[in-house]
Amino acid sequence: MDGHSITMLGTGLIADFYSNTLHGQRGRDRVRVVYSRSASRAADFSQRWSIPEQTTDLAAAIEHPDTDVVVVGLPNFLHEEAIGLVARAGKAVLCTKPLGRTAAEAKRMLEVVERAGVFAGYLEDLCYTPKSLKAVASVRAGAIGDVTWVRSRETHPGPHSAWFWDGRLTGGGAIIDLGCHCIEIIRNFVGKGNRPIEVLCHTDTLVHPIADEDNAVALIRFESGAIGQFEVSWTFRGGMDLRDEVAGTHGTIWMNHFLRTGFEMFTAGGGGGYVAEKAETSAGWLFPVGDEVSELGYVDMFSDMFRAIDEGRSPQETFYDGYVVNAVMDAAYRSARSHGWASVELDWRGGSTPRIAATTETYDGQVVIKREVLPDGRLKLILKDPASGDFSDRVVAES
Amino acid sequence: MDGHSITMLGTGLIADFYSNTLHGQRGRDRVRVVYSRSASRAADFSQRWSIPEQTTDLAAAIEHPDTDVVVVGLPNFLHEEAIGLVARAGKAVLCTKPLGRTAAEAKRMLEVVERAGVFAGYLEDLCYTPKSLKAVASVRAGAIGDVTWVRSRETHPGPHSAWFWDGRLTGGGAIIDLGCHCIEIIRNFVGKGNRPIEVLCHTDTLVHPIADEDNAVALIRFESGAIGQFEVSWTFRGGMDLRDEVAGTHGTIWMNHFLRTGFEMFTAGGGGGYVAEKAETSAGWLFPVGDEVSELGYVDMFSDMFRAIDEGRSPQETFYDGYVVNAVMDAAYRSARSHGWASVELDWRGGSTPRIAATTETYDGQVVIKREVLPDGRLKLILKDPASGDFSDRVVAES
Amino acid sequence: MDGHSITMLGTGLIADFYSNTLHGQRGRDRVRVVYSRSASRAADFSQRWSIPEQTTDLAAAIEHPDTDVVVVGLPNFLHEEAIGLVARAGKAVLCTKPLGRTAAEAKRMLEVVERAGVFAGYLEDLCYTPKSLKAVASVRAGAIGDVTWVRSRETHPGPHSAWFWDGRLTGGGAIIDLGCHCIEIIRNFVGKGNRPIEVLCHTDTLVHPIADEDNAVALIRFESGAIGQFEVSWTFRGGMDLRDEVAGTHGTIWMNHFLRTGFEMFTAGGGGGYVAEKAETSAGWLFPVGDEVSELGYVDMFSDMFRAIDEGRSPQETFYDGYVVNAVMDAAYRSARSHGWASVELDWRGGSTPRIAATTETYDGQVVIKREVLPDGRLKLILKDPASGDFSDRVVAES
Amino acid sequence: MDGHSITMLGTGLIADFYSNTLHGQRGRDRVRVVYSRSASRAADFSQRWSIPEQTTDLAAAIEHPDTDVVVVGLPNFLHEEAIGLVARAGKAVLCTKPLGRTAAEAKRMLEVVERAGVFAGYLEDLCYTPKSLKAVASVRAGAIGDVTWVRSRETHPGPHSAWFWDGRLTGGGAIIDLGCHCIEIIRNFVGKGNRPIEVLCHTDTLVHPIADEDNAVALIRFESGAIGQFEVSWTFRGGMDLRDEVAGTHGTIWMNHFLRTGFEMFTAGGGGGYVAEKAETSAGWLFPVGDEVSELGYVDMFSDMFRAIDEGRSPQETFYDGYVVNAVMDAAYRSARSHGWASVELDWRGGSTPRIAATTETYDGQVVIKREVLPDGRLKLILKDPASGDFSDRVVAES
Repeated sequence: MDGHSITMLGTGLIADFYSNTLHGQRGRDRVRVVYSRSASRAADFSQRWSIPEQTTDLAAAIEHPDTDVVVVGLPNFLHEEAIGLVARAGKAVLCTKPLGRTAAEAKRMLEVVERAGVFAGYLEDLCYTPKSLKAVASVRAGAIGDVTWVRSRETHPGPHSAWFWDGRLTGGGAIIDLGCHCIEIIRNFVGKGNRPIEVLCHTDTLVHPIADEDNAVALIRFESGAIGQFEVSWTFRGGMDLRDEVAGTHGTIWMNHFLRTGFEMFTAGGGGGYVAEKAETSAGWLFPVGDEVSELGYVDMFSDMFRAIDEGRSPQETFYDGYVVNAVMDAAYRSARSHGWASVELDWRGGSTPRIAATTETYDGQVVIKREVLPDGRLKLILKDPASGDFSDRVVAES
Repeated sequence: MDGHSITMLGTGLIADFYSNTLHGQRGRDRVRVVYSRSASRAADFSQRWSIPEQTTDLAAAIEHPDTDVVVVGLPNFLHEEAIGLVARAGKAVLCTKPLGRTAAEAKRMLEVVERAGVFAGYLEDLCYTPKSLKAVASVRAGAIGDVTWVRSRETHPGPHSAWFWDGRLTGGGAIIDLGCHCIEIIRNFVGKGNRPIEVLCHTDTLVHPIADEDNAVALIRFESGAIGQFEVSWTFRGGMDLRDEVAGTHGTIWMNHFLRTGFEMFTAGGGGGYVAEKAETSAGWLFPVGDEVSELGYVDMFSDMFRAIDEGRSPQETFYDGYVVNAVMDAAYRSARSHGWASVELDWRGGSTPRIAATTETYDGQVVIKREVLPDGRLKLILKDPASGDFSDRVVAES
Repeated sequence: MDGHSITMLGTGLIADFYSNTLHGQRGRDRVRVVYSRSASRAADFSQRWSIPEQTTDLAAAIEHPDTDVVVVGLPNFLHEEAIGLVARAGKAVLCTKPLGRTAAEAKRMLEVVERAGVFAGYLEDLCYTPKSLKAVASVRAGAIGDVTWVRSRETHPGPHSAWFWDGRLTGGGAIIDLGCHCIEIIRNFVGKGNRPIEVLCHTDTLVHPIADEDNAVALIRFESGAIGQFEVSWTFRGGMDLRDEVAGTHGTIWMNHFLRTGFEMFTAGGGGGYVAEKAETSAGWLFPVGDEVSELGYVDMFSDMFRAIDEGRSPQETFYDGYVVNAVMDAAYRSARSHGWASVELDWRGGSTPRIAATTETYDGQVVIKREVLPDGRLKLILKDPASGDFSDRVVAES
Repeated sequence: MDGHSITMLGTGLIADFYSNTLHGQRGRDRVRVVYSRSASRAADFSQRWSIPEQTTDLAAAIEHPDTDVVVVGLPNFLHEEAIGLVARAGKAVLCTKPLGRTAAEAKRMLEVVERAGVFAGYLEDLCYTPKSLKAVASVRAGAIGDVTWVRSRETHPGPHSAWFWDGRLTGGGAIIDLGCHCIEIIRNFVGKGNRPIEVLCHTDTLVHPIADEDNAVALIRFESGAIGQFEVSWTFRGGMDLRDEVAGTHGTIWMNHFLRTGFEMFTAGGGGGYVAEKAETSAGWLFPVGDEVSELGYVDMFSDMFRAIDEGRSPQETFYDGYVVNAVMDAAYRSARSHGWASVELDWRGGSTPRIAATTETYDGQVVIKREVLPDGRLKLILKDPASGDFSDRVVAES
């Protein structure tokens, strides 16, 4: 029942979520050493999460003799250097999202871990929320037929840390911060073997005095004909809005991960304290979540990662997935700039997916467009004459 | 307290909704004569709604000496002829949505009523739902600041009548049937004086064996920078999904008009009967609405129309609005065909709307990107150095 | 298409709701004269609702030669005098809830209108909400089987007018104000012919410095075995909570009439204005309703009343219903005082209702307690041996 | 980082949930041996959860040399014997709910573990749901003021195992099965030091052909004046309804743990499979939960139990709590039989709780009943004259 001993790189909000998850409940894996560029942040962090050792030496943290897994929770522009060092150290590496600032950068990281032969997991937590896992399993079991459309929305009033706002360090704005989640959620529902062909994206900077986009909407067309749609914003008011909708030929799924999960509180003020990540108010009607690290997917994500290491298999979310996400984001930015659809430039490994198939039914030589059961139990057919193209209603006895 | 005496043209589902509304509650307006192309449908309809007279003669119905208002509830391809006759008869005309199959057709109808000087109302019921009316009033009162984005979604498993499926008669598919609602809802939220500049639309025919689109998603860019987004489908499973979302610089609005309105019923079967328009099942969990004609806006719509006639003013929804909607739909179809953004070709009467304005605040010579109140009551600022473009955090005492 | 001409007695919040309903939309009935004890309130009210005439003379208002219907919107302690005068005037009378302060008072009012032979309607609006009307119709059609339990909850932070707080004028506290609604809602679901046998009620005064209860919970046992449960409070925080739940042997109904109806708004402040009756805040997350007079039942209530007058039939809610409600409230107060179940003292006209019937099914000589379909499609039975009383599981092939 | 080695007693649904939790995610505790009365069930169970050893010898399982903790997941009538054996073995014991069939039985179990000095935890999972834990913490921090009322509801269509239906083995019907959860949830919100004084309970057997209650509603009056209300049913239709509502003098909490948690799925059939515990259908609108063992509290419950053992402290839920719950259930059954309030007979250790306190505010010598801010910003007071007891409104300038 041995667990893993971890080097944690970074001490920001995401490293807090990670450590909270790893050291929460009855977990057997432990953070052994934490690295920060700042000695004081490293000290605070190690005290907060009872971590035996801290350092400001990146290489020393990665090469620490007692750790076998390195978690990269650093700002985007530091991923490549860190991952190169981990690969050289021959350890398993788990990297936060997005993998890179661009697909080119992501591809280099993918190649470096593949060449080194180390385990590499992509820490895309929102693909591991308990609702998402169950929903994806239902979709794969055929519960909603062929997926035709997925909407993934992630919006909030803007990030908490300064570096997030600097596109030079991150690679962009709300798309890089939030769109990466949405794209991979969409891929899980339409199928990871379903190639993203092209992207149409509209971006704008409406509220914040920054150079990068604080709002974006995009459409992704997949090989099967399915459409992925993502909406991201750093100007949303009311908390953090995390919702996914999936339409299929035989069903529908709606998920709300954060603001409406069956927990509602009105308070006239007083007491209170922390409600939830990115909550905007501490009085009036509030919508907390139960266990954030569980609801946001961190628990199931790390379970999958460590089990995958133990079992010698790939995790659900790999560096290749991170690279695909970057490629779609690149296309989104190109589309916004060119004011038109942009194709996804990608070294595709996923095979091919057939077109969503509608089988045509006929009745009495006519094409059946729709069947409706009338209140009296009779069946009404809407029919199309294949020769003339004319449509007609017909009520038939059987139901 | 005199009411109006009405000629009803058409006997389909929409004419049923209209007559149900007009003859419901304690209304003072009455349908005096109904026209249908089919004598038997006219007879059934007049019995169903206690209408004194019925006819298959269109001109006779319109020119009936006892009526002063004509309601056009006919299929799209018959609107222009009917409206021409009403204009000639010098009566008030109320026409169902969409006004035309194309903007050109809509414009001719607009011109014929303007030349004749008759009252002309556009029966866009979903802009009159009680929730929409109150929400639009809140937005105009500034409750959510400047509107940045509106999503309007209308999806169901497909229309009940054969002619709806024939693009030659209607002008298209799901966009013409459902998108017209969404576009006008969006216009009410972004402001009717906010010019729609261009449209990006993706359409596909995924499930039904028809020539026109059974699914579409579109973005509309308005002069202010606001984005309207509509999603329409004839392949949605689970009932009729009517939702609107509005984002503003200072607030958010979510409306669900149909499937989740605070009325939930589980039934093991038995009893039951009619649940709601386009409901798919009659057992299990069902989501009826209370009073459909009220919740779908028919009641407030006709009140506005008849009051406008009585008061000699324009109604909220005019033939000009119908024409704008057709112009946006034309652009949507052009966009889908050209695979790119298409500009909205339009004889614009709405004036001009300024860009959504973000006022820049400074602190100590730095640009304030975001303000957050920390749990301990202190204020945290995210700042940008205007010279270097670098970002930093600063915690200040005051909150 | 003639409407009714109305004398309105009272100018408080309820008279505003009534006049708003009557003069709203395209109604054909009009308030002709309004009475108030205060000349200035009468003047304000008649201006607000465009009423031609006002008076402080109760008898003159009631006997006004141009009105045929009198609406009693006065405080509870003034109902009996007003209704006596209307009965003498031979006009139709519609009285707000509760009918009386006690069953004895209500019975005298019932008798005076019956002796006079005038139409008498009980203005219990919450039994006429569109959701309630449709839900009651579904229950009567058998959609949920036999009703076993009804919960009706009405709570808010307390009334707006001073007289409501004075038990001498009203007859009690939150039960008299709010419980009357709940009891009649419950009766509509369990069936009006289902005699209320006894009541258990707990009351307390927890927050407000008053003599009467500001909180109460009660159980009502009906002849069929069904249980009605009401919860009323003048200390609820968060707005006005109006919810009903109905359990049946074959189904369930949940209704939320006010705080969660598919309309959600977040506002950072500014703009705003009136949100909804008894809303507590004007910033943060707000939950307006669309059209309050419709959602709260006023529209359908007056339609039923005036149609009933026109058609010479009884309305859905009669003075006899008001009397039954008062009898149940009397029992509730007796129960609270005696600290035990109290029987409902009542001149019962409703006939008798059989016990909720569970038919016993047997399998192989055993009593079937429950049937479950297993994931593999087989049927599992839980059986009881009638001789020994022992329980066992048995899986059988057929499903 | 050593975990615990566990003896699991029982192989039913609850033992499955327990083992699923213990062996799920990255837990460090493991079931070492499982006991069942049936060798085949023991074999299936140990295979399902990868348990090294199984036995049908109760004493051998408990005294297994390699385990330090015994989890009692047996039917109610077997708890006392098992706990006696664990106490004798000197091991930590964790017992499923309810602790006993009666308070007398529970008290004997409490005494036996206290005499033996062993750790004893009460496995009341629903007090550990993530939402409950966060809500209770908010209440303790003062977010809703003094708690005045708690409603806890647990209803479903009836248990899956035969023995649950036999009151001789369980101690009763739906109260024993479900009410035990509700009572302890209520105690967590009103405060565990708040003595339950008396209970009013109504029970009935409406649908199932059994001797015990399949429906019950009860009120519990606590020393502070707070009221606990529980509703339990084995005849609910639509799934498993787990909801809690808490009212306080300054706020409100609503929790929905199961049927409405932000996860909604419509399926026309096909695919599907397991939806959730006690779901009734596999087509139409379904409401799955994400991770059942987390949402139902099992994860946090076992974390608290094992941490408490490791830290030498009491867990949140103790055998004493289990005994209090049994005492309240005893009173509920006595109340139902005696048709009146029944006092809770209890060896109370919890100290005393003051009455919910409303501080009286005065204005100009009058008692302030209510403050309302008017739309124009002025303040309206409802006042009571302490001498006459008369009420009046007064509008004052300040707000």
